[in-house]
Amino acid sequence: MKKIKVGIVGGAGYTGGELIRLLLHHPHAEISFVHSKSNSGNPLHKVHQDLIGETGILFTSELSEDIDVLFLCTGHGEARKFLESNIIAANIKVIDLSNDFRLSSNAFYHGPVKANGEDIITRYFVYGLPELNKEQIQSAQNIANPGCFATAIQLGLLPLAKAGLLEEIYTTGITGSTGAGQGLATTSHFSWRANNIQAYKTLTHQHLAEIGQSLLQLQSGSNIDLSFVPWRGDFTRGIFISSTLHCDLSLEEIKKLYKDFYSGHHFTIISDDAIFLKQVVNTNKCVIQLEKAGTKLVVHSAIDNLLKGASGQAVQNMNLMFGLDETAGLHLKANYF
Amino acid sequence: MKKIKVGIVGGAGYTGGELIRLLLHHPHAEISFVHSKSNSGNPLHKVHQDLIGETGILFTSELSEDIDVLFLCTGHGEARKFLESNIIAANIKVIDLSNDFRLSSNAFYHGPVKANGEDIITRYFVYGLPELNKEQIQSAQNIANPGCFATAIQLGLLPLAKAGLLEEIYTTGITGSTGAGQGLATTSHFSWRANNIQAYKTLTHQHLAEIGQSLLQLQSGSNIDLSFVPWRGDFTRGIFISSTLHCDLSLEEIKKLYKDFYSGHHFTIISDDAIFLKQVVNTNKCVIQLEKAGTKLVVHSAIDNLLKGASGQAVQNMNLMFGLDETAGLHLKANYF
Amino acid sequence: MKKIKVGIVGGAGYTGGELIRLLLHHPHAEISFVHSKSNSGNPLHKVHQDLIGETGILFTSELSEDIDVLFLCTGHGEARKFLESNIIAANIKVIDLSNDFRLSSNAFYHGPVKANGEDIITRYFVYGLPELNKEQIQSAQNIANPGCFATAIQLGLLPLAKAGLLEEIYTTGITGSTGAGQGLATTSHFSWRANNIQAYKTLTHQHLAEIGQSLLQLQSGSNIDLSFVPWRGDFTRGIFISSTLHCDLSLEEIKKLYKDFYSGHHFTIISDDAIFLKQVVNTNKCVIQLEKAGTKLVVHSAIDNLLKGASGQAVQNMNLMFGLDETAGLHLKANYF
Amino acid sequence: MKKIKVGIVGGAGYTGGELIRLLLHHPHAEISFVHSKSNSGNPLHKVHQDLIGETGILFTSELSEDIDVLFLCTGHGEARKFLESNIIAANIKVIDLSNDFRLSSNAFYHGPVKANGEDIITRYFVYGLPELNKEQIQSAQNIANPGCFATAIQLGLLPLAKAGLLEEIYTTGITGSTGAGQGLATTSHFSWRANNIQAYKTLTHQHLAEIGQSLLQLQSGSNIDLSFVPWRGDFTRGIFISSTLHCDLSLEEIKKLYKDFYSGHHFTIISDDAIFLKQVVNTNKCVIQLEKAGTKLVVHSAIDNLLKGASGQAVQNMNLMFGLDETAGLHLKANYF
Repeated sequence: MKKIKVGIVGGAGYTGGELIRLLLHHPHAEISFVHSKSNSGNPLHKVHQDLIGETGILFTSELSEDIDVLFLCTGHGEARKFLESNIIAANIKVIDLSNDFRLSSNAFYHGPVKANGEDIITRYFVYGLPELNKEQIQSAQNIANPGCFATAIQLGLLPLAKAGLLEEIYTTGITGSTGAGQGLATTSHFSWRANNIQAYKTLTHQHLAEIGQSLLQLQSGSNIDLSFVPWRGDFTRGIFISSTLHCDLSLEEIKKLYKDFYSGHHFTIISDDAIFLKQVVNTNKCVIQLEKAGTKLVVHSAIDNLLKGASGQAVQNMNLMFGLDETAGLHLKANYF
Repeated sequence: MKKIKVGIVGGAGYTGGELIRLLLHHPHAEISFVHSKSNSGNPLHKVHQDLIGETGILFTSELSEDIDVLFLCTGHGEARKFLESNIIAANIKVIDLSNDFRLSSNAFYHGPVKANGEDIITRYFVYGLPELNKEQIQSAQNIANPGCFATAIQLGLLPLAKAGLLEEIYTTGITGSTGAGQGLATTSHFSWRANNIQAYKTLTHQHLAEIGQSLLQLQSGSNIDLSFVPWRGDFTRGIFISSTLHCDLSLEEIKKLYKDFYSGHHFTIISDDAIFLKQVVNTNKCVIQLEKAGTKLVVHSAIDNLLKGASGQAVQNMNLMFGLDETAGLHLKANYF
Repeated sequence: MKKIKVGIVGGAGYTGGELIRLLLHHPHAEISFVHSKSNSGNPLHKVHQDLIGETGILFTSELSEDIDVLFLCTGHGEARKFLESNIIAANIKVIDLSNDFRLSSNAFYHGPVKANGEDIITRYFVYGLPELNKEQIQSAQNIANPGCFATAIQLGLLPLAKAGLLEEIYTTGITGSTGAGQGLATTSHFSWRANNIQAYKTLTHQHLAEIGQSLLQLQSGSNIDLSFVPWRGDFTRGIFISSTLHCDLSLEEIKKLYKDFYSGHHFTIISDDAIFLKQVVNTNKCVIQLEKAGTKLVVHSAIDNLLKGASGQAVQNMNLMFGLDETAGLHLKANYF
Repeated sequence: MKKIKVGIVGGAGYTGGELIRLLLHHPHAEISFVHSKSNSGNPLHKVHQDLIGETGILFTSELSEDIDVLFLCTGHGEARKFLESNIIAANIKVIDLSNDFRLSSNAFYHGPVKANGEDIITRYFVYGLPELNKEQIQSAQNIANPGCFATAIQLGLLPLAKAGLLEEIYTTGITGSTGAGQGLATTSHFSWRANNIQAYKTLTHQHLAEIGQSLLQLQSGSNIDLSFVPWRGDFTRGIFISSTLHCDLSLEEIKKLYKDFYSGHHFTIISDDAIFLKQVVNTNKCVIQLEKAGTKLVVHSAIDNLLKGASGQAVQNMNLMFGLDETAGLHLKANYF
């Protein structure tokens, strides 16, 4: 089988690095180039130092057209600009990890595909949450890869939305330091973050829009009111979510909703035992636990923010787009301890 | 000024150790004995190894009556048993750190004060949250010291209760490993807890009863519905709480409620800046931050679970009971980093 | 190609768990049974909870003879006992992860291979450090898998031993909490170990004997004096070593010794940049860095104690014993962050 | 008793912050001003956020002469520049926390004490390690406060130097992230430093000079060869040292040397039990443990790098200079957990 040729833009960041780690061992894909202006000419392991001894690939500032798919691992707002200022041939699929194309209101990109400005094409970005949009992803030319908090929260709520049960939801989530990228900031300084907890973007996190869009896709015509309080955690990887809401169904009925909804989805698993973050760190899994007391339902969910919340899900989307087994290259050994 | 003579029962545990650390430097108190059956005869620093070079006190299995106040740092359920099986003279004040006497339904202890079983006395335990019950504490003979989560959650909600504004509250809290004591358990193993998060006792935490009692003390005749999801955090000390609820007042009006409520209370401080856990670790403080979006109010609060959530608050209560400045012995240097 | 059939004894511990994680994704091996008395009948994911959704294998208390290789992941002293009290057919290869057979003085096992006590066989255990004994491993029937500290220290010193340059060596090493197993102990309690450092087994660590044996295998007839101070670190995985010694060669000459020595060895890599622990965590690699000032040479080396220091190296040995590519099943994604 | 009036320059950094924390609760000192250009006009708690509710002092860009002692908490190289560009009256004592004046070769400062350039004075800085130079400190006008690694290593070796026993010493030390200051750097990023270990400045650490100077002060005319490998640790506070050397004395004889040497020194304590870092974190103590095997001696020592290794020792020096009890203001509650 011919390997999928992959180009990566923004390969020096966290999500770019994780994508490289995954694709180096992917059975049906190979990296054609890793683009990074600031690191051009350096071997990958100068930045991603765990790769020492594994690959001779160098960062490049050149883009090649001899690829099947291009991953954009640039910052938010940079993906659209990149497409505007670089000619990407129409036949190349694009998977964007930023938030530039996630909402239906900004899911279209119009632009030239030749340097002379001719042949304007339109790219439409499918929201790449396989548990929600698997069929569209399989036939998509372009993917807007979901946000990390958005993935973990949605996976915890989608079955309830499908059953039309969502109204008021109170969600708290905690994320590791890699969620904020590798930029240096007071809140990413080890002396500050170690042994610390802080709330941020209370009730105003930027992922609320894409979450709302997905929930309404399944439960249209409703008013869904999601209050989300994100916390900074003192760990590097992972997201843990607890969402509380009223629900009149029994716990068994609710569990059945979830198991039915996720029955064809390999990576999202309903656990009867108490879940915890390290079950999923360094994997592409999402684990979900359901608890009930009186009329209150609590849904816990956990993912690795860089894998199921970013680069792992991007590879999962690539697999679907190219007709591969969804799990190809994603049989990952959890760090666990 | 004559120093208060203090006896400590259960001095080998976390809260006992913190109490010793505080009282060794207290300007108006001195430790008469530290009771521990299992460590009897050992110097304190064999267990609390930071105390090396600071004190020659030995653990003892004997109780002396020549004390003014007795702190019970035993496990939940053990405090009542201790009073039943040991004769504590009626004039000795008791501060109990367990949950045995916190609810009005179990705030009374009836028992003998002489070995022959004569002279039955009744001890009534005042719920020792100074921000709620300062006057009763000042004249109390016995104190039921509040729980750690209970302290942090109540301090975040009391001003709203006083204003009659509480209805449905959605609270998430995270606690360090010392909250579970020094017993060995899978969830206290470093290999498990490092870099991990897990929910536990979802909607059923044992502190809900004392929280409800206090809120209704200020907002009587209401239905207050508090949904609390506690998390295990991967740090050793501290509690961080976010509570979300509907509130029609403006943020400024709410802040005024809080500042008025806590105006005479040295340790509870309203912050206009984003708070974080390490502001209060190794101190007796509680910091509170208020945020609002639409009709939703979020109250963040943070304490050190072993100090304001246990031994520090116990010393604060002792200070009040003996007519001292509330802050005596509690000017603590934060660890901060 | 027919898959290697694997049995695992002691599958509920840390090294057993890591072995399962590796073998579930190994292209040329399959798990026949995972033996654990205490967990018999439970699915693997009841203990190794990251495996939820990945496998339906149950722990068993039965041993099957229909395997090609048996891994012993029992505690030190338990492996020999296991062989004595269970009949393992002579044709089944054995890889023991304990220290029972590592020294030439105890590398032999004599015992029956049938329940009636007939057919006494002798098993000889080759010390399974591929960088030292690759050829013997390839033809070995039994492997004594090296200790974790022993692996990291030896890989840092073998090229110098081969060049006859070792005399006095001063080594400090730090290990994560998983190095001590999953037993509960004061020093494995999160409240103690977080943010803490302690020396233990100063100059007397049990791995000194196997290290000395390997160094003398390459530099026979010498007096090699290795002073080793192990530290407990406040992390879960990994070992970092710095060894200091006198050496008259230039840094370039020394680097050449190392690069030559490890030229055919995929997992051990000489770095010109400063190495750090997280380069190798969750991989089977060892990275080595060399520094020199005056006549002093410092060799830094780092491994994952559970992989290159235990289960990863065990799989590497299995690969060699069965004529596979040494790296089969060991292309692991580093956790890195 | 009249309180000592204190000025602090560089009050927005880590050591400045710790100094403020200590002096706010010091019984015989009071802060006159905290100088910081970048934070002038802000309350202290805008930077040191744990101080909220404790003090109304503002950072200032003005220097007042109405002080008894000035602490310089500026970066290395900045202290000398500060004295050159600011007129500090001759009667004001100076305690410098940088490395500008620690070596006898640069212990003198010559400069004007009036704005017109008149009245050149010479300041001589005594090396402020009380366990080495207590008498000189008591009569000193200026103090060069020792480095953090330098303090921990010296305290581990001084008794041996006094006994003339030092020759070759092999030392490994590990330091927390606060040792590198609050500047943002790759190695201070939480995502990098968490769960990580790295060596740096191998055999070339800048504290070697001051260590050598002190050892030769007690063991003059010797060749002392100290090989020091510093490690970055994944914790915020503290330094742990293990030094290995040949020594023919018995362990009992060596312990006696240490106990005699430190008999009048409150903060440095010889432990018969295994020491660990968290015994001393958030205190001004140094704990020392001695172990022996054959002719090898290992000395372990531990301090808090920001207290006994910086601001705590600076206050200790102030106490000595002003004839106070050495421990005034330094009865600190360890964080311990």
